[in-house]
Amino acid sequence: MQVEDFLKLCAVRVDGALETSLASCTEAPSELLAAIRYSLKAGGKRLRPALVLSACGLACGDDTPALPGACALEMIHTYSLIHDDLPAMDNDDLRRGQPTSHKMFGEAAAILAGDALLTLAFQEISRSGNIDAVRELALASGAEGMVGGQYLDMQAEGRTITLDELRRIHAGKTGALITASLRIGALLGKAPQSMLSSLTLYGQHLGLLFQITDDILDVVGDSAVLGKSIGKDQKSGKATYPALMGLSRARALADKTADTALKALQDFGQEADVFRDIAAFLLHRNH
Amino acid sequence: MQVEDFLKLCAVRVDGALETSLASCTEAPSELLAAIRYSLKAGGKRLRPALVLSACGLACGDDTPALPGACALEMIHTYSLIHDDLPAMDNDDLRRGQPTSHKMFGEAAAILAGDALLTLAFQEISRSGNIDAVRELALASGAEGMVGGQYLDMQAEGRTITLDELRRIHAGKTGALITASLRIGALLGKAPQSMLSSLTLYGQHLGLLFQITDDILDVVGDSAVLGKSIGKDQKSGKATYPALMGLSRARALADKTADTALKALQDFGQEADVFRDIAAFLLHRNH
Repeated sequence: MQVEDFLKLCAVRVDGALETSLASCTEAPSELLAAIRYSLKAGGKRLRPALVLSACGLACGDDTPALPGACALEMIHTYSLIHDDLPAMDNDDLRRGQPTSHKMFGEAAAILAGDALLTLAFQEISRSGNIDAVRELALASGAEGMVGGQYLDMQAEGRTITLDELRRIHAGKTGALITASLRIGALLGKAPQSMLSSLTLYGQHLGLLFQITDDILDVVGDSAVLGKSIGKDQKSGKATYPALMGLSRARALADKTADTALKALQDFGQEADVFRDIAAFLLHRNH
Repeated sequence: MQVEDFLKLCAVRVDGALETSLASCTEAPSELLAAIRYSLKAGGKRLRPALVLSACGLACGDDTPALPGACALEMIHTYSLIHDDLPAMDNDDLRRGQPTSHKMFGEAAAILAGDALLTLAFQEISRSGNIDAVRELALASGAEGMVGGQYLDMQAEGRTITLDELRRIHAGKTGALITASLRIGALLGKAPQSMLSSLTLYGQHLGLLFQITDDILDVVGDSAVLGKSIGKDQKSGKATYPALMGLSRARALADKTADTALKALQDFGQEADVFRDIAAFLLHRNH
């Protein structure tokens, strides 16, 4: 199966589970649920849930125990986009060609929809009955992980930063959640420690690869394929890999990072091909 | 011991545990931690942590297993105040006489400090190792609980609402977290089902009592003792118990609600006196 078909298949399953989760919130105000649903359904590659499911599948041959974890990761990712788009943050009116949450529902509703989604993620992952998975999700998405990265990113605006600072921002902002996807899937599949370590290493490099190629696409991508305008980073003076090291060295770093991600999988046979395919997909992606 | 001294004693212990928790976030940006610490240390009665500790103490004679739960509840409460004060929400410049988070650190930092605190609450409660406590916290603080109540409150602004609507808003906005404090303390103390039910019933009425007396204080309170300006609800046309039913009927409802809270404790002897004292304290409070 092509990796894009695999991602689509994961997306269908996760979307179903997300809808089940929302439908069970019978005591929630319906307009608040509508705002949450709007952002959850706005599309995206569902890369994080696919990593959760695949890691669990690798660990125990069955990915169904990881479905609550997959939903939780997508909920955290989605809340972070809602809050990121707010006027006080990136002030974006459009995401994936659609009006952002605060443009659709107002700023207060967008703040609360994000807060509710973040909270629902922990309700969802608690269904797994695995307290280690809860702790992992909190660590990766909080002040020492994703929120910390967003804070550093905000602080870096309008000033020149070093490659080391850029790496730290992204390790938090995108890396932590991608690595956590693999670790949570592995935990829910009761993976042995060695497998958990390999997937962690793979995840750290996959997260970096994701960010480098994201930055490159902002320079060379096709806005119609991407569903967003390109050149935005450059215009806003945002630090990116191509800006800090030039396009060709950024491409070489992407190649090298994909290589390191693959090396982390060297103890596994073809049962880990899905992870190799995902790395190749991110390296060569055009959206 | 007077209940106010008891609350102060709880506050000292919880403040110590909160500081330990923050100090362990060594990977977090220090300015983000400073913003979190600022709001956590801004004072308040620490009512919720005291309820968590007391419920656990009643259940098993030792309240130390509940310390992570006590911290988590205070973190959720504090994050909700930070987000509530934002310009897009209540737009408050002062809280307890101090500049609000966004006034001190800017709006983006306040949003992120709130997000980080909400996430840290789940990291903290996961230390208890009790997955039921995690689920309880998520349910009480999310779309079906506190955030749902905040959403309804925001929707109600500027229009006349019924007493039933007011009750639903407060059951979410303040009631859910107060009830959850008791339930989480009981869960962490491995309380039997009958004790959990009694404390739940007590908590529901204590939450209502808290809100009615809060509304009454906004009419008759002393702004110097309260540390905030009074008459604010009336000026902003906010629905309150005195506004909807008149001051004397609101006072009668507070008396009746305190009575019902006490009745929920009728199976307990003097080991539950702390809960009786807290109900009396809220009924007669002047701040």
